[in-house]
Amino acid sequence: MSSFGKLFKITTFGESHCPSVGVVIENCPSKMKIDTSYISKQLNRRKPGQSDISTERKEEDIPIILSGVENGLTLGTPLCVIVNNKDQRPEDYNFDPKNYLYRPSHADYTYWNKYGIHSSSGGGRSSARETVARVIGGSIAEKYLKENYDIDIVAFVSSVGDISIPLSEELLKTITREEVDKNIIRCPDICANDMISCIKNIKEEGDSIGGIVTCVCRNVPVGLGEPCFDKLEALLAHAMLSIPATKGFEIGSGFYGSKMLGSEHNDEFYIVNNSISTYTNNSGGVQGGISNGNIIYFNVAFKPPATIKLEQKTVSMNGENAKISAKGRHDPCVVNRAVPVVESMSSLVLIDLLLQQF
Amino acid sequence: MSSFGKLFKITTFGESHCPSVGVVIENCPSKMKIDTSYISKQLNRRKPGQSDISTERKEEDIPIILSGVENGLTLGTPLCVIVNNKDQRPEDYNFDPKNYLYRPSHADYTYWNKYGIHSSSGGGRSSARETVARVIGGSIAEKYLKENYDIDIVAFVSSVGDISIPLSEELLKTITREEVDKNIIRCPDICANDMISCIKNIKEEGDSIGGIVTCVCRNVPVGLGEPCFDKLEALLAHAMLSIPATKGFEIGSGFYGSKMLGSEHNDEFYIVNNSISTYTNNSGGVQGGISNGNIIYFNVAFKPPATIKLEQKTVSMNGENAKISAKGRHDPCVVNRAVPVVESMSSLVLIDLLLQQF
Amino acid sequence: MSSFGKLFKITTFGESHCPSVGVVIENCPSKMKIDTSYISKQLNRRKPGQSDISTERKEEDIPIILSGVENGLTLGTPLCVIVNNKDQRPEDYNFDPKNYLYRPSHADYTYWNKYGIHSSSGGGRSSARETVARVIGGSIAEKYLKENYDIDIVAFVSSVGDISIPLSEELLKTITREEVDKNIIRCPDICANDMISCIKNIKEEGDSIGGIVTCVCRNVPVGLGEPCFDKLEALLAHAMLSIPATKGFEIGSGFYGSKMLGSEHNDEFYIVNNSISTYTNNSGGVQGGISNGNIIYFNVAFKPPATIKLEQKTVSMNGENAKISAKGRHDPCVVNRAVPVVESMSSLVLIDLLLQQF
Amino acid sequence: MSSFGKLFKITTFGESHCPSVGVVIENCPSKMKIDTSYISKQLNRRKPGQSDISTERKEEDIPIILSGVENGLTLGTPLCVIVNNKDQRPEDYNFDPKNYLYRPSHADYTYWNKYGIHSSSGGGRSSARETVARVIGGSIAEKYLKENYDIDIVAFVSSVGDISIPLSEELLKTITREEVDKNIIRCPDICANDMISCIKNIKEEGDSIGGIVTCVCRNVPVGLGEPCFDKLEALLAHAMLSIPATKGFEIGSGFYGSKMLGSEHNDEFYIVNNSISTYTNNSGGVQGGISNGNIIYFNVAFKPPATIKLEQKTVSMNGENAKISAKGRHDPCVVNRAVPVVESMSSLVLIDLLLQQF
Repeated sequence: MSSFGKLFKITTFGESHCPSVGVVIENCPSKMKIDTSYISKQLNRRKPGQSDISTERKEEDIPIILSGVENGLTLGTPLCVIVNNKDQRPEDYNFDPKNYLYRPSHADYTYWNKYGIHSSSGGGRSSARETVARVIGGSIAEKYLKENYDIDIVAFVSSVGDISIPLSEELLKTITREEVDKNIIRCPDICANDMISCIKNIKEEGDSIGGIVTCVCRNVPVGLGEPCFDKLEALLAHAMLSIPATKGFEIGSGFYGSKMLGSEHNDEFYIVNNSISTYTNNSGGVQGGISNGNIIYFNVAFKPPATIKLEQKTVSMNGENAKISAKGRHDPCVVNRAVPVVESMSSLVLIDLLLQQF
Repeated sequence: MSSFGKLFKITTFGESHCPSVGVVIENCPSKMKIDTSYISKQLNRRKPGQSDISTERKEEDIPIILSGVENGLTLGTPLCVIVNNKDQRPEDYNFDPKNYLYRPSHADYTYWNKYGIHSSSGGGRSSARETVARVIGGSIAEKYLKENYDIDIVAFVSSVGDISIPLSEELLKTITREEVDKNIIRCPDICANDMISCIKNIKEEGDSIGGIVTCVCRNVPVGLGEPCFDKLEALLAHAMLSIPATKGFEIGSGFYGSKMLGSEHNDEFYIVNNSISTYTNNSGGVQGGISNGNIIYFNVAFKPPATIKLEQKTVSMNGENAKISAKGRHDPCVVNRAVPVVESMSSLVLIDLLLQQF
Repeated sequence: MSSFGKLFKITTFGESHCPSVGVVIENCPSKMKIDTSYISKQLNRRKPGQSDISTERKEEDIPIILSGVENGLTLGTPLCVIVNNKDQRPEDYNFDPKNYLYRPSHADYTYWNKYGIHSSSGGGRSSARETVARVIGGSIAEKYLKENYDIDIVAFVSSVGDISIPLSEELLKTITREEVDKNIIRCPDICANDMISCIKNIKEEGDSIGGIVTCVCRNVPVGLGEPCFDKLEALLAHAMLSIPATKGFEIGSGFYGSKMLGSEHNDEFYIVNNSISTYTNNSGGVQGGISNGNIIYFNVAFKPPATIKLEQKTVSMNGENAKISAKGRHDPCVVNRAVPVVESMSSLVLIDLLLQQF
Repeated sequence: MSSFGKLFKITTFGESHCPSVGVVIENCPSKMKIDTSYISKQLNRRKPGQSDISTERKEEDIPIILSGVENGLTLGTPLCVIVNNKDQRPEDYNFDPKNYLYRPSHADYTYWNKYGIHSSSGGGRSSARETVARVIGGSIAEKYLKENYDIDIVAFVSSVGDISIPLSEELLKTITREEVDKNIIRCPDICANDMISCIKNIKEEGDSIGGIVTCVCRNVPVGLGEPCFDKLEALLAHAMLSIPATKGFEIGSGFYGSKMLGSEHNDEFYIVNNSISTYTNNSGGVQGGISNGNIIYFNVAFKPPATIKLEQKTVSMNGENAKISAKGRHDPCVVNRAVPVVESMSSLVLIDLLLQQF
């Protein structure tokens, strides 16, 4: 299944080297002003080749709206938006499975076993190119959330390898996308430079490195999320772990919370200016699966990209031990390009729950 | 929504103090032998009062099958299985919301805002009592997985507060439920005793503590999971974060993987006994969202229980600052009772993907 | 699958001779007043033994609420409501499939082929007893529709065998359940007596007869239904053809509309009292899949019950030609008991679309 | 929602005058041979301008595959297939709602009330142009059904206005698409000529006429369909009533069955050549919601097209009485072009149930 959401539902399609990747959006509210400029803005933050710590491959990624919009307004009917793949290079018909070398920690081995077939070049459907469609859907969702509820969603890089930044309450309250975009690694801290140097070195060595993206959602109204299986944090976890290369998700206190005492962890209430507030926000804005009006924040762990130039051991499809080293251009670290993808998946979760609730 | 799964779908119902909690299971394969003994076995591992590090409240939790089974065999029709609440104590009709004190880090604040009403006693639907229904569904699912695919699912406590155990490859390959159940904290390591002491001390102080549950799934066939939004790890993350009191999920290398180099992290292939194996399993049994035949393992972080005897600051529903300290019997730590819940949610994810795939 | 609806979703369970039949209702709005009296009212209109043109079997059908309601108010959590089967008679363990005779036009042949097993007595899940659960869900839905939107849903018998009544505009506008219930066949017309005589004769002969139920829904707001696959009429058709023994559905002009000219069939608009009205209502209250504010009306065709006392040809499970004649008590015609079932399925369709729309 | 199906799921998009209409197909089995020729074959049977009893508007309707297929084989990933609208004529920006005249029995009134906006020209999403997407999805589904299960699906026109053909057992058993296509009304009977004359006369008068499409599905394996809400006949009814301009559905004996005695209607079993057969097929191939291996056949009633040249009464959006008569080219009767749409929706229902069952 390639659909996400119950009411605001996106269905994505497209491989890395087919004619187009795209998305169908169902139940987008009618009479929203849509132009492609803000879709492009997020696509540009995601696209390859945007800096020298990303893959050098260039894609324009211009969104084309095929349906659901007339004279710049949504009709309440499904939007289909596509981006054409400039660079379609499906390999020739003479693909010989016998000599094919499985790429370690890539999806080709599991795809072959599941489908008995795999796109002949690139990652096919498992390629991060699929996230183009998510960013299109997410950028429309976040426009709605901002205009109707003043909801802010800002993600940033909080860790690359061993280099991490502290997550102060102040940072979570005030961080903006403008600040995030001040450097190419999208880390709003002085140690951004160290992260960039680290990635450049690793790139030179033909290796890759992992990292963490942190995301905050501000002004989310109280009441989003379901008590049981569709808890807000469960839907966010689902959304984040569906992004390629992710290995972990934690909300609020997260894994550190497992080391805490109840008396430390509980967010005590108090009255300020006639409204209810809490001294702390270890819950991360969610209680019992339902948003409580506090800032929602969470971390997403990304593994190092599997494609590296260093030689690795592998096997061929006909069962022979072999060696492989990747050719071409690849991301040495994906977290900076993942920032708009994390934001997009967050906005898709929130808009779906909002439409269910109100 | 209180449903989980697409083909093998469970729908749960019941509050902590209504007549019954229960589950409807749709698409349970026909002609499965069902008796309530193995359901009870898992329910007993979950039930309160099983040891002196759990709440002292006693519930028998005897499963009653209302439909879908005849002469001990499933009919292919929906099973409804309930457990009656022995101890129904909904408070009297004179409940006065004005004086109600919100319990810090509990769901009562968000429920009142979402529904405008809340069960008058206990946690209602947000109570961990709801997990009874999950364990019933999960125990039937895991019986099917074991009998038809020899799939083993074993969860255990790997951390309580600061006390953690190492997760060796050997442990993940061999751990059994019998070993897990050798001590009351369900930790298969010498430091179980320290964990138990720690919890007893904290209980005495009227406080609570968090912890981590690790789960392994062995013999899962290659090919389960979808490439895009319904990646196996995304569904597991969804399932785990839907368990009350969870704050994080990580699979394979998890958050630690974000610190690794690609050359360390990639699971290189080799041929052994004419079949394909990998030197490492940092992927945690999943690549590109699809199971690869290796052991699936993941961690789930649990926060300290919100109900503590220590006095805490809070506010009343009519907006006055106040103090609260919990009365009665509560769990000082939930991880040992969460073990069968984590196993159950894992088995529900796997059976649903299996029925979709085969 | 035994679920119906997207937001207001019911999941039903239970065979004709298991301990209970029942329903779980998800997303029932919170703070609705629920008591079992109005559920019982509709159950009593459906129950067997209510008159001498129905089966003589007696069932009390008392609804028991297991969850989701406290102090008479819904909590916003899932309701489980069951009715216990008084008369459980699953046959003994020595059931011998070899000598089993398939009942003509019954579901036992298809169930055996689909599931490899079948309830040993009665119709099991294919029994009309399953509609108890629909009536429980529907009665709660229609209470909400009436209280919040003043929506009236009234079904009645419009045909038994060859005896039909005219469907005047006046009748559709004014018919009430009280008028419908004035006679045991639930036909608001003088020819009700002929229908009753007809059924009594057929019953005496050991045979059965079909009929038609007509349903009107008044005060349905404009805008319910989706443009494409989930057109209001498509959901109604789905709902009605899911009732046991139905063979056809038509809305508005229906099959007769296929004989009409556009100039006759089109519902021309005009202004009356500053609001828009139409001269005719051939559309049956729906245009382009969306309600237009007019009365929704439709017909549902029921076949004659398959169980008859007359001898019929059949075969045994081991492939021998045989004869069969039903023993015991059966309905000679189901339409009068189907009236509340048709109303219930209508209310389930409407409430689900209402919750999606508003 | 614009999606249909659970496993083989299609999501359609596109208005009558936007850049493209199209479909995303999820869970299409991998390694199917796909070329556009057989998609085109069904599209050509649906397309406008194919004969002088259809609208004269011309559209080429050439399918373009954007994703999911490589080297002519499906990858198991989502297929997106579009058809570009040659003739995009959204009206200019100066559309003035005040003077807009609602078209009687069209969807514009309900769309305006539901969405507050409507495509400025043509029927937008309510246009039958949307069925292009269904035919694309259906043609791929039926290829799979034919190649893997030898399932035949053949629809034909059985009635236009008062002119009807008898539905003999022989006809249902043997009718082929080649025979159906021998005349432009797609009626395999001598009275096709009368139907054609009738439509030509009505067209000349500026009026329109309704009709009935009958569909047969042969070689459907036993066991498809669910016992309760997703009965095979309920899903077919849903599918058929979702086609624009439909008003009724009946399967097997249908509405006529409501006039029959049980002793006539029951399909008695007998043994022939060591296998089980029935003397009659009043059930229409379905019992208890599950296919029984017999021929499935059903009728779908189509109303006369709402767009006619004759003058009609209507009102403007600002509430004035007015007159309207349609300009341009329109279908005087839709049944012949509806034939491939009915076939497509049938194949979508069957493939979805097949993938669920096997």
